[in-house]
Amino acid sequence: MKELKLNKNRFMKYPGNIIFRLMFLFSAIIITFTGCKEQQPVRRTIVSPEIHQDKSITFRYLAPGAEKVELSAEFLSENLLMTKDEDGLWTTTTGPVTPDIYPYFFIVDGIQVHDPNNTYLFPNERFKRSVIEIPGDPPLLSEIQEVPHGNVTYRYYKSQSLDLIRPVLVYTPPDYGKNPETRYPVLYLIHGMTDTEETWFKVGRVNVILDNMIAQGLAEPMIIVMPYANPLPALLEKNEEVDMNVLSTDYFTDDLINDVLPFTENNYSVYTDAGNRAIAGFSLGGRQTLAAGLGNPDKFAWVCAFSPAIFSNELENNFKNLYASPASLNSKLKLLWVSCGKDDGLYDASVEFTSLLEEKGIRHRTFFSEGGHTWMNCRLYLSEIAKLIFN
Amino acid sequence: MKELKLNKNRFMKYPGNIIFRLMFLFSAIIITFTGCKEQQPVRRTIVSPEIHQDKSITFRYLAPGAEKVELSAEFLSENLLMTKDEDGLWTTTTGPVTPDIYPYFFIVDGIQVHDPNNTYLFPNERFKRSVIEIPGDPPLLSEIQEVPHGNVTYRYYKSQSLDLIRPVLVYTPPDYGKNPETRYPVLYLIHGMTDTEETWFKVGRVNVILDNMIAQGLAEPMIIVMPYANPLPALLEKNEEVDMNVLSTDYFTDDLINDVLPFTENNYSVYTDAGNRAIAGFSLGGRQTLAAGLGNPDKFAWVCAFSPAIFSNELENNFKNLYASPASLNSKLKLLWVSCGKDDGLYDASVEFTSLLEEKGIRHRTFFSEGGHTWMNCRLYLSEIAKLIFN
Repeated sequence: MKELKLNKNRFMKYPGNIIFRLMFLFSAIIITFTGCKEQQPVRRTIVSPEIHQDKSITFRYLAPGAEKVELSAEFLSENLLMTKDEDGLWTTTTGPVTPDIYPYFFIVDGIQVHDPNNTYLFPNERFKRSVIEIPGDPPLLSEIQEVPHGNVTYRYYKSQSLDLIRPVLVYTPPDYGKNPETRYPVLYLIHGMTDTEETWFKVGRVNVILDNMIAQGLAEPMIIVMPYANPLPALLEKNEEVDMNVLSTDYFTDDLINDVLPFTENNYSVYTDAGNRAIAGFSLGGRQTLAAGLGNPDKFAWVCAFSPAIFSNELENNFKNLYASPASLNSKLKLLWVSCGKDDGLYDASVEFTSLLEEKGIRHRTFFSEGGHTWMNCRLYLSEIAKLIFN
Repeated sequence: MKELKLNKNRFMKYPGNIIFRLMFLFSAIIITFTGCKEQQPVRRTIVSPEIHQDKSITFRYLAPGAEKVELSAEFLSENLLMTKDEDGLWTTTTGPVTPDIYPYFFIVDGIQVHDPNNTYLFPNERFKRSVIEIPGDPPLLSEIQEVPHGNVTYRYYKSQSLDLIRPVLVYTPPDYGKNPETRYPVLYLIHGMTDTEETWFKVGRVNVILDNMIAQGLAEPMIIVMPYANPLPALLEKNEEVDMNVLSTDYFTDDLINDVLPFTENNYSVYTDAGNRAIAGFSLGGRQTLAAGLGNPDKFAWVCAFSPAIFSNELENNFKNLYASPASLNSKLKLLWVSCGKDDGLYDASVEFTSLLEEKGIRHRTFFSEGGHTWMNCRLYLSEIAKLIFN
C-alpha cells in the first residue's frame, strides 16, 4: 500500500481548486455515462499492478460491492484470492516472479475482467487479458532499451483472394530506408488461434526483441510481416458462404502467397528469392506455417513451427507429397524448425511429427522447451529462430 | 438469434473429429488456466455485437451465473437491461442507431466488463471499453474504403526533457516517400485525459479520415504526429519527484518542443516553418494545445482546441501575454479554432474563452456542435479542421 499512499499524498499536495473541479467534472461525466456509481471512481489513484524491488507484485482492484475477487495469472499455478479493505479495495501481493511478460485478469464474483488501472491489453478476438511486464536485470530481450529502434507500421492491403481490405503490421529494422539500395530478407510471422495481427507486436514484442538482437549482433536485420491470418469474421460479416473449419489452411495460404507476398515485395526494399523468405507461426499459425511453407518450398527456405496445431492422425496424410521426395525438400529448405513446450497439450503431436520427419529422412531441428502453450514460449522461440534464419 | 444459430449450424457442418479435438484442447487449456469453468467456454461461437440491416444492434454476453446484466453505450441515453436465455446467454437488441463509432460495455452484477467477443478495444489508462462501428450509407469518413492508404507507424524517441524512451505514432499520407523531394506539413495531435498515444489512431481513426479526405480532395496531404502526452505514470515508476497536478502543461510543452518536434523533423520529410505546423488536442489535450500552441506562436500557426479543459477563473491569467498584444498574435496565427459540444460540461468555459478572445480582438473561429464530451465529436472536429489547416 506504500505506493498508493504516496500517490494520494502527492496528489493532495496540489489542492488548487481547478484540479478538483476538473476531477469532479470527469467523475460526473463518467458516473453519468456509466450509471455505475460504486465502481472505479476516477478520483482515487489506484496503482495496479505495482512491481516491488524483489519482483513480487501487488495487484489492486476497487469493487466495494463484490464478494470474492481472485487473481488469475500465467505465472501462477493456481488463482490467488484477494482481500478487501474498508474502502472496498481488493489487494493481493504475490511472491517474487521470474522476469517476463505475462497475461493476467481478475475474477470478480465469477466474472472475468481486465485490470482497469493497467493500460496494457492482450489483443485477441475472444479472451480479454491485461498484461504485466516484469523487468529483468540485466534487461530481457523483450525490454525496450536504448538501442536504435526499428518501426512497426500498421497498413492495409487489398486481398484479391479474399476480396477484402486486410490489415497487416510490418516491422522494419533500425537502418531501413537509410540507404535505398539496401535490400532485406523477410520473415512472415503468424499469430495463434483467436489472436490478431497485433498479437506478435503487442505481446510477442517482435520489434523490441529484434531491435535488441540486431544491436547485439545476434540477428540479421530483417523485415517482419504480420498478417491477420483469420479472415472468417470478416467473411461472415459479408454473409459469404465460408468454410467454418478453423483448421483449414486454404484461405490463409491463398492470401499469403497471392496477396501478402506481392504487397510486401512491391512496397518494401526486399529480396524475393526463397532463401530470403522465412515463415513462422504459433499454434494454429504453426499449422498454417507448415501448410504454406512446406507446401511452397520454392517460396520459403526457412520454415519454423512454434507449438503447431497438428495431430498424429493427419501427419502421414497432410505431408504425403513431401515424404515422397525428401531429397528434393532437403535441397530446398535451409531450415525446418519445430518447437514445443513440454507441458503443452500439443507436445506429443510435435514429437510424433518430428519423429516422422526423422524416419522419412527430412532434415529438421527441434527445440523442446519447458513450459506450455504460452506467449512466454512464443517470445523465446522467436529469439531462437532469429539467430538462425538468413544466416 | 438468427446469426448465432446460423453460425452454430455452419460450424456443425464440419464434424471431422480433428476440429473437435482442437476445440477440446483449447477449451481445456483455457479452462485449466482460468479456473472459471462456467464462463465463456470457447466452444460456443457467440456473435456480439451483431449489426442488423436497419442498424439496430444485438449484444450478447454469456454469464449463466449472473443475476443482472446491462448494456451501457454512448448511443444510449440510459442503460439497457439484458435478458437471459436457458443457456445463460444474455441478450439485448437496440433500435436503429445513427452510423458512427461508439464505446460501450456490459455491467454484470455491477461489474464493468468488455464484450469478450469483440476484438475492438478502446485504448485508455483507466476505463476499459469495447467499441462498435456502425457503417453508414454512403460510408462515413471514418470507414475504411478502397482509396490509397497512408500508414500509421509506432515509433520510439528518447525524450531528453523527460529522460525517458517515449512512444509516438506517426501517420504518413498515401504518397509519402514516393518522391523523396516532397515535403509535408505536420499536425501534432493530442489525446484526452487518461487516453494514450493510440487513442487518436484506434478510436479517432485519424488515418482513415485523412485517407478518405485526401482521396476526395478535402484535405491537404499531411503528416500527423501523435505523442503520449501523459508522462506521469512513467515518471512515477522511476520514483521521480513529479508534480502530480494533471492540469500542469509544462511536461508536455517541454517534451513537445524540445523532443517531439526535432524527432519528427529529423526523421520525416517535412517543412519546419510555423505555417506548416499545426497543433490540435481534445479535452486535457485541448488545454495542452492552447498552452503549447498559443505559448509558441513562432512555432505553430494553426492552433485547434477540441472541448479544451479550461476554466473561467484562469482565462484572464493564463493567456495574459497574448491579450497584451493581439495584433502580434493575429499576424502570426493562421487559425485559432475552438470547438465544443453543447452538452459538454466544458461548454460554458469554451463560450467564455471565445467571448474573451472576441473582446480582446484575437481572431479565432468557433465550432459549437451538438453532443457531449465524446470521441464521436473528436472525429467530427478532426474532419472539420483537416479542411482548414495548411490551406
